[in-house]
Amino acid sequence: MPIEANMPAPEWSVESWFNHAGDLRLEDLRGRVVALEAFQMLCPGCVSHGLPQAQRIRETFDEADVAVVGLHSVFEHHQAMQPHALKAFLHEYGIRFPVGVDRPSSNGLPETMAMYAFRGTPSLLLFDRDGQLRAHHFGLVDDMTLGAEIQALLNPTRSGSTQPQT
Amino acid sequence: MPIEANMPAPEWSVESWFNHAGDLRLEDLRGRVVALEAFQMLCPGCVSHGLPQAQRIRETFDEADVAVVGLHSVFEHHQAMQPHALKAFLHEYGIRFPVGVDRPSSNGLPETMAMYAFRGTPSLLLFDRDGQLRAHHFGLVDDMTLGAEIQALLNPTRSGSTQPQT
Amino acid sequence: MPIEANMPAPEWSVESWFNHAGDLRLEDLRGRVVALEAFQMLCPGCVSHGLPQAQRIRETFDEADVAVVGLHSVFEHHQAMQPHALKAFLHEYGIRFPVGVDRPSSNGLPETMAMYAFRGTPSLLLFDRDGQLRAHHFGLVDDMTLGAEIQALLNPTRSGSTQPQT
Amino acid sequence: MPIEANMPAPEWSVESWFNHAGDLRLEDLRGRVVALEAFQMLCPGCVSHGLPQAQRIRETFDEADVAVVGLHSVFEHHQAMQPHALKAFLHEYGIRFPVGVDRPSSNGLPETMAMYAFRGTPSLLLFDRDGQLRAHHFGLVDDMTLGAEIQALLNPTRSGSTQPQT
Repeated sequence: MPIEANMPAPEWSVESWFNHAGDLRLEDLRGRVVALEAFQMLCPGCVSHGLPQAQRIRETFDEADVAVVGLHSVFEHHQAMQPHALKAFLHEYGIRFPVGVDRPSSNGLPETMAMYAFRGTPSLLLFDRDGQLRAHHFGLVDDMTLGAEIQALLNPTRSGSTQPQT
Repeated sequence: MPIEANMPAPEWSVESWFNHAGDLRLEDLRGRVVALEAFQMLCPGCVSHGLPQAQRIRETFDEADVAVVGLHSVFEHHQAMQPHALKAFLHEYGIRFPVGVDRPSSNGLPETMAMYAFRGTPSLLLFDRDGQLRAHHFGLVDDMTLGAEIQALLNPTRSGSTQPQT
Repeated sequence: MPIEANMPAPEWSVESWFNHAGDLRLEDLRGRVVALEAFQMLCPGCVSHGLPQAQRIRETFDEADVAVVGLHSVFEHHQAMQPHALKAFLHEYGIRFPVGVDRPSSNGLPETMAMYAFRGTPSLLLFDRDGQLRAHHFGLVDDMTLGAEIQALLNPTRSGSTQPQT
Repeated sequence: MPIEANMPAPEWSVESWFNHAGDLRLEDLRGRVVALEAFQMLCPGCVSHGLPQAQRIRETFDEADVAVVGLHSVFEHHQAMQPHALKAFLHEYGIRFPVGVDRPSSNGLPETMAMYAFRGTPSLLLFDRDGQLRAHHFGLVDDMTLGAEIQALLNPTRSGSTQPQT
């Protein structure tokens, strides 16, 4: 069953990390809002929109409040997008935030993608300070909406009724 | 003395309104966050950035929560930017939110501009639900930051410590 | 009868000039290709596309080979777009090439607009070195196509068969 | 010695082709202007500017007059940009014009890149109908200038004095 907003969010399944030493778990980021940008290095919409937007999140919010994490969820052209190629890509595009390699599975769909039922790439997931999934976007989302959604998670109302709509 | 953030905000001084019947006072908007976009119709940065951004605020947030108000604060080329010309401009650019004409004064600076010490146009002011001035931007501000600032005013934390930085 | 491409082109009818001392006739520009950008100062497509493109023509080609001329062809909101307002507009937008005021007529359509049958603004007309009309664009035209069209007029083939398509 | 404009241009050295059956030599394109876009699939400026511009050349000019050819000149991250990865890249980015793989050499610089002294990628070379190199751009060139340069090669003046400046 796919993960839905406001359900307890399971750990992502990552094979290896770039721009981060050691393992990095969602659980390690408790207390911070987490923006997870799932992408493929040869996906045009990820390169032109998703990743630059993730970089803007990194520049806009304080790192102590919002963690930005990339996830390389390869579901096509697997041979062309292996980790050694991703490393070159991240270098050329100047991406400095942690990027995990979504763990491959035998059916071609990487494990985190399958677990969270990504519809494709780019997919952007927002988790609140308690590690709950609160938004799941596929494709483009505009910056103003996204800025508001992240801020809503930083400053929830008492009633908890302010989750962004997905 | 200029108005500063977090001080009680005085009423704007408006001569006449477009896209709104009757008067519209800041006080009438209590309970809503107010985004006030001060512009001149012949200011290139207002036309290319400020006003389109104000329109995106209007599209992004619920009208019951956020009021978007334009203010035509003419401090140069007064003859070219009279209300009859503004009316044509608003029609051509498809601007539908209320726009007030900042009341002219004898020294060339309109009254609201002088009272709030606008440094020029575009200037964007954010007022909270209680009518307090909480942000004052001159020139360009990016959409993600602005989305976050508005949302912070919609959902303040208990401590009230989350005002955006101006 | 409207003027068509490859017919002898009549003189524009201009009431007054900005950025040019004295009169400026099409005939004065014989020997140069002429790009005539017809616009209205309150026309959004003119402000965002037509006039910036005319400025790029000015920057791209040698002034000895290509003349860029603006024409303010007001057919709506006449009161808001009088010459004194145009002067402020040209100043604010940094337009330095000569701009003529298309001569008003009693029916609201200015004379050059009527004579050349502009469909609206922006309209871009290209005249060859002999003063013949060779292209007439209404609305947007991309830069690469336009660069090629102007160059084709600068370097015609022997047969004269290379006029751009309108 | 590097190849200079207006010298007889040597054949490119290509290992294999995509979007073209069999070999494709510069000599085969005599009679047409040739735009050669040298790129790397992991070069951000190539992806955001060079290749989209090459596609606009393809759309703007008649294929009988102007040939657009891509050249994958890999001088860094060789493992990440092998032909099998290029194939996936061309598919994802919808590039339909012929793309050759610049033949690798033992020193890391591919043969055509070395022969023509590309300073990096993207590099755009223009050859005239006789196969002579007439322009060599490194980095960004604007569309209007490029449209004019290509047109100048299509319609040279009698004196031949109109080559674009490199």
